[in-house]
Amino acid sequence: VTERRSPDSPPGARHVETLSPWVSLVTRTVVFPSDQSAQPFHSFALADYVNVLAVTADGRIPLVRQYRPAMEGFTLELPGGLREPGEEPMATAARELFEETGFAAESIEPVGSLRTDTGRLENRIWGFVARTGAAESAEWRAETGVERVFMTPAELRQAVIDGRFDHGLHVALIGLAVTRGLFDWTS
Amino acid sequence: VTERRSPDSPPGARHVETLSPWVSLVTRTVVFPSDQSAQPFHSFALADYVNVLAVTADGRIPLVRQYRPAMEGFTLELPGGLREPGEEPMATAARELFEETGFAAESIEPVGSLRTDTGRLENRIWGFVARTGAAESAEWRAETGVERVFMTPAELRQAVIDGRFDHGLHVALIGLAVTRGLFDWTS
Repeated sequence: VTERRSPDSPPGARHVETLSPWVSLVTRTVVFPSDQSAQPFHSFALADYVNVLAVTADGRIPLVRQYRPAMEGFTLELPGGLREPGEEPMATAARELFEETGFAAESIEPVGSLRTDTGRLENRIWGFVARTGAAESAEWRAETGVERVFMTPAELRQAVIDGRFDHGLHVALIGLAVTRGLFDWTS
Repeated sequence: VTERRSPDSPPGARHVETLSPWVSLVTRTVVFPSDQSAQPFHSFALADYVNVLAVTADGRIPLVRQYRPAMEGFTLELPGGLREPGEEPMATAARELFEETGFAAESIEPVGSLRTDTGRLENRIWGFVARTGAAESAEWRAETGVERVFMTPAELRQAVIDGRFDHGLHVALIGLAVTRGLFDWTS
């Protein structure tokens, strides 16, 4: 089963319903090329995701464990958050890394950006790699509901392989960082 | 900005609205740990995605270019589609590979499965690597609206690096296949 729609939609046939401060439901009328029937197609409009693969001076990667309503359970993910309007993704990355883990980025560089889901999500995800000191800031206070988990690069690689780290978009950012030579998890 | 919700939601506070044969809108009531306010949280329930990284006997990777309503434009992606109820993901993979590209899998093996988006999507994506013959089936007819694009492994790697291939979930599957030693794009 594949949803296959043509670009023959009537111009302007796009309706946006605000569901919450975080997400809007977009409904477009699209025409199936197979039988030329017009049908509604639904997607979410939402802020871009920004996530950070940070390595501390003593070789640890800070990850976050938190409850995710859509999963009805806890997940293990890269630190990150939502890009605010007009904010540079790199600024989002540094801010969220600090808020969620207490580690200040001493250097940070872009991994790239990717579409999240061409089928249903209209945002992008931006990835960054960062270097931090060995210790968290003394002023930092943990956010309610966010638990830190530390892994070495080799442990993260193993967690991706065996499925303990299974957030697809974050696996994509890590893979892109490895491919671009910005992160080495083989040593 | 981070959406942070606690697991203290009232049990059963989950409403599902069927939007189309393809997707349902799920609304849960969740409680913010910061101020204990109850707010709606929205996600999509939909069938699992299944995608295939195939390499032909003469070293070409078939990709698909198609119109995506949510992107209001064309995208370059791995072949694939939606898992039907009760269907083995591997069967979906072989079927969609053939329907979209005309190449029959001579061997196929799982790369793994990942969560698509822990924030907003309740499905998973399943990846497979396949080997095919050098030529497409003589009986095959192209699907309307799907154009094939062929790349060598090195070309695909370069397209990921420079952003021409930017579907995050498919980059994740390729990265997982590389990490697990199921695909080599460095040669």
